[in-house]
This record gives sequence, structure tokens and C-alpha cells, in this order.
Amino acid sequence: MLLTLADCGELELIARLRPYCHRELIGDDAAVLTPPVGEQLVVSTDVLVEGVHFSLGMADVPVTMTPVDVGWRSLAANLSDLAAMGALPLGLTVGLAAPPDCPVATIEGIYQGMAACGQAYGTSIIGGDTCRSRVLSLSITVLGSAPAERIIYRDRARVGDVIVVTGIHGASRAGLECLLHPQWAGTLPEELRQAWIQTHQRPRPRLDVVQWLRQQVCPPRIAGMDSSDGLAAAVLQICQASGVGAVLWAEQIPTVPLSDRQQALTWALYGGEDFELVLCLAADLAPDLCAVAGDYAAIVGEIVPETTVQLKLKDEFLPLQPSQLFQHF
Amino acid sequence: MLLTLADCGELELIARLRPYCHRELIGDDAAVLTPPVGEQLVVSTDVLVEGVHFSLGMADVPVTMTPVDVGWRSLAANLSDLAAMGALPLGLTVGLAAPPDCPVATIEGIYQGMAACGQAYGTSIIGGDTCRSRVLSLSITVLGSAPAERIIYRDRARVGDVIVVTGIHGASRAGLECLLHPQWAGTLPEELRQAWIQTHQRPRPRLDVVQWLRQQVCPPRIAGMDSSDGLAAAVLQICQASGVGAVLWAEQIPTVPLSDRQQALTWALYGGEDFELVLCLAADLAPDLCAVAGDYAAIVGEIVPETTVQLKLKDEFLPLQPSQLFQHF
Repeated sequence: MLLTLADCGELELIARLRPYCHRELIGDDAAVLTPPVGEQLVVSTDVLVEGVHFSLGMADVPVTMTPVDVGWRSLAANLSDLAAMGALPLGLTVGLAAPPDCPVATIEGIYQGMAACGQAYGTSIIGGDTCRSRVLSLSITVLGSAPAERIIYRDRARVGDVIVVTGIHGASRAGLECLLHPQWAGTLPEELRQAWIQTHQRPRPRLDVVQWLRQQVCPPRIAGMDSSDGLAAAVLQICQASGVGAVLWAEQIPTVPLSDRQQALTWALYGGEDFELVLCLAADLAPDLCAVAGDYAAIVGEIVPETTVQLKLKDEFLPLQPSQLFQHF
Repeated sequence: MLLTLADCGELELIARLRPYCHRELIGDDAAVLTPPVGEQLVVSTDVLVEGVHFSLGMADVPVTMTPVDVGWRSLAANLSDLAAMGALPLGLTVGLAAPPDCPVATIEGIYQGMAACGQAYGTSIIGGDTCRSRVLSLSITVLGSAPAERIIYRDRARVGDVIVVTGIHGASRAGLECLLHPQWAGTLPEELRQAWIQTHQRPRPRLDVVQWLRQQVCPPRIAGMDSSDGLAAAVLQICQASGVGAVLWAEQIPTVPLSDRQQALTWALYGGEDFELVLCLAADLAPDLCAVAGDYAAIVGEIVPETTVQLKLKDEFLPLQPSQLFQHF
């Protein structure tokens, strides 16, 4: 019989989760951290709800991840927000709400995944809270830091900037499709399928790109965000915040290699959850950035004075559709 | 007809919540803060679930608060965790999960309450996330700071220390009783009833005590925590962390003035949610601390070498009951 939270109680649960947390920082009313001297603090919070952001079979939604995947992915999404700001992580807190009949192993799996992702990116759980609810949900707050002059904001794009993406877009959406429709996935090369599923279940926040940017002696002016809501949303929001427009060159966008090119492009623009960075910067730094960011990084467009965002597909200019963007509620 | 979250959509909701947040810090992937030079960061996360921590009539639990109260109280609980560490607040993030049929006015009320409490204590909402769920829940993360040598930990109590409480214990529990059983409350003086209800609905984190401690030129050694889980839990946890024991003097504990003294003492020890501070320190500083903390602050016991926690009631020594402490799940 599965051990549930109701069987084990809160104190026993906390004792079981302790190995996944920073050894010295758990136990008081709050956690204590030493921020790097002279750096700004960068803070981001994400809420993830079972049946909405992930599925472990409690709600009426197909299961596409293990608890360990859920933990990894939840933290990766938050670390990606730090990367989008040019910050490196200091630590995180986790607020867990869970039903009493939830298996303890599910919660341990989630914390194991968060701890593994944290370890991969040099950070750890330093505090949090656990409580009872009718729905399993996680609220993760990551703390990071960056020198003031190296923080990446959305409102710094300038006309003439190029737009760089740090990797393939649409792969997470393609991975989800493989999990939801195995018959469709059966026609694909095994290697591709595995790579997409990996992108969906264990996304990698691009803190490596931030680390490279830190090494630039003169801090470059960069506007950017991550592509957690899709490439279109990222470009639209950067342009809106910066009071500029953009043209995206469809042929340059690194997508998944589907024979249905239209599908691949739609997933790249609107699929979301790729957790790559979308950065606007002067053209001269872009080739080096692409070289460092990996084989699929590319210059995919440019910032223009007209305040519209258009997709250039062959000789046509198509406006990007904000209406396809995901909204909660 | 009430406007619901489903009617208004996520972007409209965020626009409506913006007035309750720090004007300049909302809009990017993460919020940016400047930590005070040379201070440590102190971070605390609390999760609050409708039907468990508060009731707005969505679950099968009596309603004892308005949405504004819920917001105030949720943040006050978190600020109390900072006070318990000797820290002053820098800002907070809020993770909101809510059902689509939740009235927008409910959410606005909660944010209004958080903003009011933040303003009263010199801090504000700097970021967060909103998403859909089947249950209304809030996850608040407060960031604060303190000089390293002024942080209050649980494990610093020493034999011979006195135990100070900064105010009445059991008043929040008494306020809840007034709300749940108006017929009982009807027999009480109006002034008392209102004061207790206020303590329950709008508790005050004791950041004023932290501010006074900051003014002590030589940082005193203090062990402590807040009494959010009741006075008994606070003393038991301080003693466990410090490897010591304690004797509490029942007659000295500031309780609500019930004719049923046993009831008042039980609420003081186990009622919880008073959000006062329980501090262990050398006897010489205690009278000044009590004078500053207010009329009901008192020295209620002492730290002893035997690792048990006992209540001295007249000539009897009664062990405190960890089994009465609240556990989730």
C-alpha cells in the first residue's frame, strides 16, 4: 500500500524532504543567504498546479511526466526567468500544497527532481513551506543576482538590433505531441523523438549563456526574455516594452524538422516552454553569441521602427497573432 | 452579476492588480532589488489555502474574514517570520492560484489587504505569478535583510536566559471563537471582543521590536522565533534547537482575561497565530525589551539545563504537550 501524506504527517514529510534541501539553511523561521557584494538581487516566482501545468494523473489530464520530471521542469522554468534577466542563482524556496491522499513518493520525486536540477545549475532549496490543499501545487521562488550593469531588461531593444534565439523553438511542443500521440511519434526517427521528449520533460535553462555574457569585459546592451510562452510572445513583449517593432525571418527560425513546415513554425512561434533566450543586441556581438549558444542558435530577425511585429515568410509579411498567446483563466 | 476571473482573463487581472504592486518593479521576467550593503538576506515562504488557512466561503468552512483581511493576515504572518529572524523587509512576491469562477473583487481585495499591510510595514509586492487552479491559494515569499551579527536564530538559547514574550497569547484564538460562536462572544465586553477579532483578522508582526533591537549598539545574543504556532511550540522548538529545556511560569503568561483561566492558558499555549515574538536572552536586557514591546510584554520563564519543557502552575510542574501542536496532513 502506498504511504500517503496523511499517513506520514507533516513533520515526517519535512524530515523526508530535508535531504533534497541545503543542509545548513533549513530549520529557522526563514533562510539566510549572503548576497554577492555589489550585485543586485533578482527574484522570480512561478506557481505550478497539477492538471494545469503538469499532470500526475490526479486531474483528468493525460500523464506525460514522472514526479522527478515535474520537479526538474518546475525549477528549470524558474531558473530560465533568472537567465532571462542575466542573473545567476543563489537559492530557492518551495511552497508545496498537496492533498492528504497524495503518495509521499510523489512528493519525494518532485523534490528529487528540483534538487537534481538545482545541483546541475549550482543552486539548492534553502527554505519553504508545506501544507494541505485539495490540489497539488508548487510555488517556487528563485533568488539570483547580477551586477546592475549586466541585468537584461525587456525595454532596452533599439532599432537596428538583431534578434538572436539561443536554440530550437517548438521542440518542447513536439515532445508533448510525441507523448500524447505515440502513433504520430512512431513515424519519427527514435533519436529526434527522444530529444524532443527530453526537451519537454527536462528543459535546460540557458544559464550557460549568462555565464558567457558575464565574461564580456564591457557589459553589452541587451534586451531580452525567455521563450517560455513561445517565440512570438517573447518578441511581442520585448517590442511593446521597448516601443519598437520587429521583423522575424521565418526561414532563419530554428524549428523542429517536420515535413509539415507550417506546423513546425506554428509550434516555434506559439508552442512555448522551450526556455531558450530571445535576445536583442547590436549586430556585431551576435555571431559570437550564436557560436557560444550552440548549433541551433541563430539570428532570426531585426528590430525596426514601426511598432508592429511581422513574420517575413518568403516575400510575404504576416502580422504575429497575440490572440494565439496562452492566457490563464 | 459578479465579474469572475474567467470573464476578465489573465492580462486584465494583472492590470487590475498592478496598483497594489510596486510601481517600477513589475513587468520583467523577475524583479530586481538592491540589498543593503553588508547585510545578509533573509527569505521566508508561506503557503495559504482557502478552506485550510482562511475561509472565503468556497470550501465548507465558516467565513471569518473579508478578502482584505485574508491579504493583510497572509502577509503579516510572513513578515512575522522576518521579525522572528531579526530582519526588516525588502519586498515580497505573491504566487496566486485561483479558480476561474472566483470573483475578481475577491482577488482585488486580497491584494488590497497585502498592499495595506506592506505599506504599514514599509514594504511592497515586487513580483509574482497568477494561474488557474481548482482551489484558491496564495504563496507569499518575503525578502528581508539584517546584519549578520543581529540575526535571531532558534539555537542560541543558553541556560540562565529569561524567556520574553512581546504580548498577549491566545487573543487570536479568542477572536476566532468570537467569530465562530457569537452567542459566547455576546457575554463579553465589546472592547475586548473587538480587540481579539482585530488580532485574529489583522495581526501585527512585531517589526517594531526588531527596530528597537537594531538600535542596541552592541548586538545582544538572542534566540527566538514567532508564536505563529502557539507559545508552547515556540518554546519547544527553541529548546530542541538549542539543546536546553525551559520552565514557563503560568502566572506570568499574558493571556486573555477569561474567567475560565484554564481555557485562556490553553489558548495561549496552543492557540497560535498571535504573531508575537518569543525571545530568550540574558536577564539584564529583558526589562528594557518588555518596556518597549508594550503593556503586555512579559518575562514568562527561564531556560534550564534539563532538556524538558515544563509549565509551572502554582506548585506543580506539568510537561508541555507536543502532541497538541498543529500538524498539516
